[in-house]
Amino acid sequence: MLFVMPSSNRNVKARIRAAQQRSALLGRPGFLVRRLHQLHCALFLEETRGFAITPVQYSLLTTLERGELDQNSIALEIGLERTSVAEVIPRLKLRGLLERRRDPHDGRVKLVRLTRKGRATLRKMAPFVERAHARTVDQLHPTDRERFLLDLITLVESNNEIAAVPLRLG
Amino acid sequence: MLFVMPSSNRNVKARIRAAQQRSALLGRPGFLVRRLHQLHCALFLEETRGFAITPVQYSLLTTLERGELDQNSIALEIGLERTSVAEVIPRLKLRGLLERRRDPHDGRVKLVRLTRKGRATLRKMAPFVERAHARTVDQLHPTDRERFLLDLITLVESNNEIAAVPLRLG
Repeated sequence: MLFVMPSSNRNVKARIRAAQQRSALLGRPGFLVRRLHQLHCALFLEETRGFAITPVQYSLLTTLERGELDQNSIALEIGLERTSVAEVIPRLKLRGLLERRRDPHDGRVKLVRLTRKGRATLRKMAPFVERAHARTVDQLHPTDRERFLLDLITLVESNNEIAAVPLRLG
Repeated sequence: MLFVMPSSNRNVKARIRAAQQRSALLGRPGFLVRRLHQLHCALFLEETRGFAITPVQYSLLTTLERGELDQNSIALEIGLERTSVAEVIPRLKLRGLLERRRDPHDGRVKLVRLTRKGRATLRKMAPFVERAHARTVDQLHPTDRERFLLDLITLVESNNEIAAVPLRLG
């Protein structure tokens, strides 16, 4: 593994230009983000192989750690379309990781919560997931890594309303 | 729009901690990258609405600007599974944006190239796509934005071999 110098020490513009010579796609933020997400998914699946849980399923399950939620709230918490949430939940239910019941106060609403098995699975997965997240950014110098994370947070929060499903934040 | 100070002027650690208070997901690089990709797709679709071409279809089409390619090479250029490429191509062919023929030197290989209409579409789309990419990162201070881009390039290139389909770079 190459030791990467903090970015203040490098000629940023020249390095970006050199990368674009290797592939024009490397000059497009959208492409880079799609690709990095793909790589993170590969790392996630590699680290958590035995559990057979996707990154999106994992986000959904961890959202329920704080308590029972209806499907619409889950969609808002993780920023996923309601239809996708409605597809994922039955699969996790079949595997005994969560359970669903009608809201006693409103029969049209379905409440979802983790089962004991769901909680235990999340606990066992946690260190592997942690590793997958760390490996996604570990090629950056620690100083750059934190600033990179903050930049991601800035972009995700400031563009939040653009998405079909805005995240519920704070 | 808030003017964002260059990150050297801010307390990075404290700001990351504050974000994690708003949502634990904001502390996970993988989640942030997935979300930023989602936001970029929303921006891309908003900017290029009239064209009805997805970001992945656009990447595929631009790969063909340099000339004819077989499907396997396309997959390697854009880092997509061969099966996904095989799904996307017929749709673009139906719309008259590309055409396919058997390789005269090897009948098992299918070569794909842009049609005149495909080229014209890419030309017309270019300024809108440019805007979508710019908007994906325009909430960062210009100095941060370049370093952020370079960090993305570093991560994408250094993790390249992890992916199911490594990118062909340089």
